[in-house]
Amino acid sequence: MPNYRKKDFATDDARRFLEPGPIVLVSSAYKDQTNIMTMGWYMVMEFTPSLIGCCISAANHSFEMVRRSRQCVINLPTVDLAAKVVKIGNSSGRDLDKFAEFGLTPKPGMHVRAPLIDECYANFECRLADSSWIKKYNVFVFEVVKAHVAISPKYPKTIHYRGDGEFMISGENTRRYRKLFRPGML
Amino acid sequence: MPNYRKKDFATDDARRFLEPGPIVLVSSAYKDQTNIMTMGWYMVMEFTPSLIGCCISAANHSFEMVRRSRQCVINLPTVDLAAKVVKIGNSSGRDLDKFAEFGLTPKPGMHVRAPLIDECYANFECRLADSSWIKKYNVFVFEVVKAHVAISPKYPKTIHYRGDGEFMISGENTRRYRKLFRPGML
Repeated sequence: MPNYRKKDFATDDARRFLEPGPIVLVSSAYKDQTNIMTMGWYMVMEFTPSLIGCCISAANHSFEMVRRSRQCVINLPTVDLAAKVVKIGNSSGRDLDKFAEFGLTPKPGMHVRAPLIDECYANFECRLADSSWIKKYNVFVFEVVKAHVAISPKYPKTIHYRGDGEFMISGENTRRYRKLFRPGML
Repeated sequence: MPNYRKKDFATDDARRFLEPGPIVLVSSAYKDQTNIMTMGWYMVMEFTPSLIGCCISAANHSFEMVRRSRQCVINLPTVDLAAKVVKIGNSSGRDLDKFAEFGLTPKPGMHVRAPLIDECYANFECRLADSSWIKKYNVFVFEVVKAHVAISPKYPKTIHYRGDGEFMISGENTRRYRKLFRPGML
């Protein structure tokens, strides 16, 4: 199991880890229950405030927990957690306590009651910023209010879902195209 | 330059190529002009209809072209186009014709007037399905009305933006976790 030491990270830079499109784990707390779900349908929407649009199917047990608590944590798992990530996505919090079942460690957040998953590379504490598309599209707009990111490695090895049980695992990281950017675009 | 032979692909399965989070190229046409922009902030929102939520900054020349024409094509470039993708993202259609400048081939779509980029691995013809968050968040919801995908290779080698001029290049593709899925989840 990975054991990442983390530091505070600029919330405006959450895109550095989310824009590449990895599968993430959404943790939540409501009343006396916590839960975890997998999420692949989300996007960065703004730097400041740091907004993330997330599509959470109403079929998920987490849907009502997140909607009612108006909070969640977006956690970034690395490939060493892939089997657990799939099992989390193929079970329901209606039936089991996923932290206990999958041996994951809930850690208190600073700004939200939803627990951080300690074994993940990064944790983004989120508050619901816009609920107006929840009913229409199951879309929640969250503001990242606190970010915790592992000190090392510099780049996490993440898993990206392709559908039909297939994943892409992140490959090489490169700065070789950086010289082609205009200074104002960096 | 890549030269992909493509076939029709189920629009409901657009997620197979977009959910992993690659940088895409958005092509558009309005009046007598065409344009191309890079896009990293988007998400899958629904299988059927096939909906993609896209955040297109109003600072882009493409913004008004897409808003007024209510159409675009989402094109999936592979790593061999990475330098062109960066140059496209660091120039403006206000100043130049990007198809000509970057030697890309515009190909007529079946359902939209926006041109497909022939050198890309996949082309998703899109119609604007919801404009109600354009003003608030620069978010366009598109419906994929026609999908064209390369016959081979099975998995494209895509580029994923990390911010600050850095990219992640897609790595290994695996079905090794597929056995952990419940049949109804595939």
